Amino acid sequence: MYDPVELIRKKRDGVFLTRQELKYLIRGYVAGDIRDEQMSAFLMAGVIRGFSVKETACLTEIMIESGKEIDLSSISRTKVDKHSTGGVGDKVSLILAPLFAELGYCNPMMAGRGLGHTGGTIDKLESIRGYQCEVSSRDLPSRLQRSGSVIFSQSDEIVPADKKMYELRDVTGTVESIPLITASIVSKKKAEGIDAIVYDVKCGNGAFMKTPREALALAESLVRVSQKTGLKARALITDMNQPLGYTIGNALEVMESLLFLRGERMDRHLKEVTLALTYEIHSLFYEEEKEVFINRCDKIFRSGKAYERFKKMIIDAGGDSEALEEIEEGRFIEKMIQIRSKQDGRILEMDTFSMGKALIYLGGGRLKKGDSINHHVGMELHVKRGDSVRVGDPLLTLFYADEAKKASVMSLLEKSIMIGEREYEENPLIYRSVH
Amino acid sequence: MYDPVELIRKKRDGVFLTRQELKYLIRGYVAGDIRDEQMSAFLMAGVIRGFSVKETACLTEIMIESGKEIDLSSISRTKVDKHSTGGVGDKVSLILAPLFAELGYCNPMMAGRGLGHTGGTIDKLESIRGYQCEVSSRDLPSRLQRSGSVIFSQSDEIVPADKKMYELRDVTGTVESIPLITASIVSKKKAEGIDAIVYDVKCGNGAFMKTPREALALAESLVRVSQKTGLKARALITDMNQPLGYTIGNALEVMESLLFLRGERMDRHLKEVTLALTYEIHSLFYEEEKEVFINRCDKIFRSGKAYERFKKMIIDAGGDSEALEEIEEGRFIEKMIQIRSKQDGRILEMDTFSMGKALIYLGGGRLKKGDSINHHVGMELHVKRGDSVRVGDPLLTLFYADEAKKASVMSLLEKSIMIGEREYEENPLIYRSVH
Repeated sequence: MYDPVELIRKKRDGVFLTRQELKYLIRGYVAGDIRDEQMSAFLMAGVIRGFSVKETACLTEIMIESGKEIDLSSISRTKVDKHSTGGVGDKVSLILAPLFAELGYCNPMMAGRGLGHTGGTIDKLESIRGYQCEVSSRDLPSRLQRSGSVIFSQSDEIVPADKKMYELRDVTGTVESIPLITASIVSKKKAEGIDAIVYDVKCGNGAFMKTPREALALAESLVRVSQKTGLKARALITDMNQPLGYTIGNALEVMESLLFLRGERMDRHLKEVTLALTYEIHSLFYEEEKEVFINRCDKIFRSGKAYERFKKMIIDAGGDSEALEEIEEGRFIEKMIQIRSKQDGRILEMDTFSMGKALIYLGGGRLKKGDSINHHVGMELHVKRGDSVRVGDPLLTLFYADEAKKASVMSLLEKSIMIGEREYEENPLIYRSVH
Repeated sequence: MYDPVELIRKKRDGVFLTRQELKYLIRGYVAGDIRDEQMSAFLMAGVIRGFSVKETACLTEIMIESGKEIDLSSISRTKVDKHSTGGVGDKVSLILAPLFAELGYCNPMMAGRGLGHTGGTIDKLESIRGYQCEVSSRDLPSRLQRSGSVIFSQSDEIVPADKKMYELRDVTGTVESIPLITASIVSKKKAEGIDAIVYDVKCGNGAFMKTPREALALAESLVRVSQKTGLKARALITDMNQPLGYTIGNALEVMESLLFLRGERMDRHLKEVTLALTYEIHSLFYEEEKEVFINRCDKIFRSGKAYERFKKMIIDAGGDSEALEEIEEGRFIEKMIQIRSKQDGRILEMDTFSMGKALIYLGGGRLKKGDSINHHVGMELHVKRGDSVRVGDPLLTLFYADEAKKASVMSLLEKSIMIGEREYEENPLIYRSVH
C-alpha cells in the first residue's frame, strides 16, 4: 500500500504526512513490519523538520488506537485530570487528586516514576507500605466509584505504541521534540477516558523547559492537540526556579501533602499553583468566581475532608494506614544534618536542577532504569528565593541514610543556594495560562 | 568513551563532529556496538544537517580503515581510474580501460552493477561468456602487471563499512546526501591504491543529478574530498540528456565498444567524453597539448592496439574469445523491430530515464537486487537530439527475446523520443570541469 522509505523521504524533505500515511507507519511499527532503523530515521526527520498540529493530533489518535481506552461511561461525574511536565518537589498531584474528588469530579490519574532529575508521583506513593499502583482497566471504574480519584501507573494495555516509541527515542537522540512529547502525553491522558485536562508546564532551572518561550511552545502544543482530539484542555506555565513546597523526597513529600491536606503548614506557592490548576478545570464546567471557589477549597482542607479522602484513596489501593501515620509523624527519618548560612544576605537563586540530582545521589531517585530507591531520604528547605538570612540561619535540612552518600551531596547542596546582596527579582509564580 | 546518543544529538543540532567522534560511531557500527536504529538516526540527521568537507573526508578515511587497501606498490606505473555517477548507454569504462593501459597507465577499475535505471560495467562484461569479475586483492597486482587494466567487482574485503551503511541507507531514506554519496564513492576508489581519479558526473534527464547545479555540488564534493584524502582528482560534468553512444544493453554496448576500439563507428559524443576524461588524468602528470594527445589516442585506436589490449584483458579474466567474436558480429541478436518516425521534424528531446527503464522492462536490467538478466536485449538509436527526420525514418531498433516484454516497452519508447518543429537548443556535451 505505502512504501515506508518513500514516507521517510517525505518527512525528511519537510512534507506533511496524511493520517493514512502516519497510520501505516505507526501501526506497521507496533506490528513489527516497520523496522526500528526505519522508525528512528523517520523520527529523526520529524524532530528536525517538525510535525504540524494536525499531524501531531493524528499521531496521538493512532497511538491511542494501539491499545485500550479506559471506558468510564458508567460514571456520571465529570472526568478530569492534571498533568505536570515534571519538576522538583512537585507534590501537586497528591493534593489535587483528593480535592478533585471532594469537588465532585472523577479523577483517573495515570502517573509516572521519576524521570531525569524530577520526581514521580508513583515513587512518592510507593513510600507508603502496601500501596499498589497497578490497576487493570477493568477494575478502574469501580475503584473510581468508591474513591473518586485513583492514582495508578501506566499498564501495557494503554498506548503500547508510546512505550515502544519512547524506548526507541531514548537511544536515538529523538526525545527532544515538542510534537513527539505532545503525542506521548496527550495519547496517555486521552486514553484515561477523561473529559478535560489541565497541563502544568514547568518553566525554569528545575524544569525540562528552561525558558518561558520553550514552555509556551509546549503548552500551546499540548492544548491545541488535546482540543483536536476532543479533550477540553487548558495549560498554566508555572515557575520552577525553586522547588515547589518545602520538601524534596518521596516520604517527605507525602508528609508535606498530608499536613497540607489537613490545612497545616500550607506552603503558599504550592497552594497557589494547586488551586490555580484546579480552577482552570473547574471554570471549564462552572461559572464560579475564583475567590468564591478558593474559599470553598479552603473549607474543604480545614474541614479535614480532603485529608480523609486521601487516606481513603490510599487504603483502597492497599496502603497501610499505620504506615501512613508513621510518615505523617516523620517516624521514617533516620539521620539528619542542617546546612546553615555562612553569610548575611538574600536568597538570590536556587539551583533546582542540582537539588533534584542531589536526591538521586542520596539514593532517593534512580541513576538508571530499574534501580531501587530509598523512599526515606530527602531535604527540607527552610528558605525561599527572596528571603533575607543571617549567618547561622538554617537553610536546608538533609535527611539521609548513608554517610558516603551524604558526603557526596553536601557541597553540591551548599553551592545550590546562592546568597548575595544584589537586588532580587521575583519570577511570577504563574507566568500565563493557555486556553 | 563517547555516548552514542550524545553524538547523534550533536549532529541533529547541526554541530560538526570530530574525527574521533566519527571514528567511534562508524567503527562501533561495523563492530555491532552501535545499533542499526542509532546509525540510521545519525545518518538522517546528517542528511538533513549536512557534513562539512572535513567531516566527509574523515568519514571516507574511517570507512577505508574498515577493510583492506589494495597494495600496488610493486607496480611502478602511475595508477589511475575513472568513476561515473551513472548514465544510460555509458560504456566509457570499456574503452577507457584499454586506452589507459596503452598510454602506459595502470588502471585497477573496481566497477558496479546496474543501479536504478542506469547500466553497470560488470553487467556489460558478464555478457561475455566466462568473464570472471571477482579478483582477490592478492591476485590483482600480477593481473595488472600482465594487462595494464583490470575491471573487477567490489569484494567484501574492500570498505565493508560502505556495504553495511549502504544497505541501511537504502531502507531508511538516507541515500540522497552528497556527503554520504561522496564518502561511499571516494572510499572505494581510494582503497584501489590509485594515485589519481577523474569523476564523470552525469547531468540531465538520464542521470541521478538532474540539474547542473546539483551535478556541480557533487563534482566539487568528490574532488575536494578526494584531494583531502591524498588523491589527485578532477571531475567533468557531462550531458546525460540522451544516451551516450548509439546502443543501450549489455552485449550491444560491448559490441559498440569493440567497434569503437577498432576505430570503426566511433560515436562522436562517446569519443569526446572518453578522450576528455582521459586527458583530465593525463594532464595531471604530463604537459601535452590536448590536440597532440588526441591525435595520439586516435592512432592507438586505428592501429588496433586498444582493441587487442581489450581482448587480452577479457581473455585474462577468463572470457571466451569465441564469445567475444559472437558479440562483435552481433550473433547474439534474436528478434528485432524498428520504431520509425511518424512525422517530419527535429529530434527535440529524449526521455533518457525511460530508455533506461525500458532496458530493465525488456529483461536487460534488474527490477530488484538478485534478479537474473538477459544480456542480449537492448536498443540501437539511429538518431541524436537535433537531427532532422522525415516520416518513416528509423529512430530506434529494439532487440528483444520475449514478445510480451517487447509489447510492454514499445509505447514507452515511442513516447520517449520527442519530435517537433520548434527551435532546438543544444546542451553542451561537457558542461565544465572541476579541479
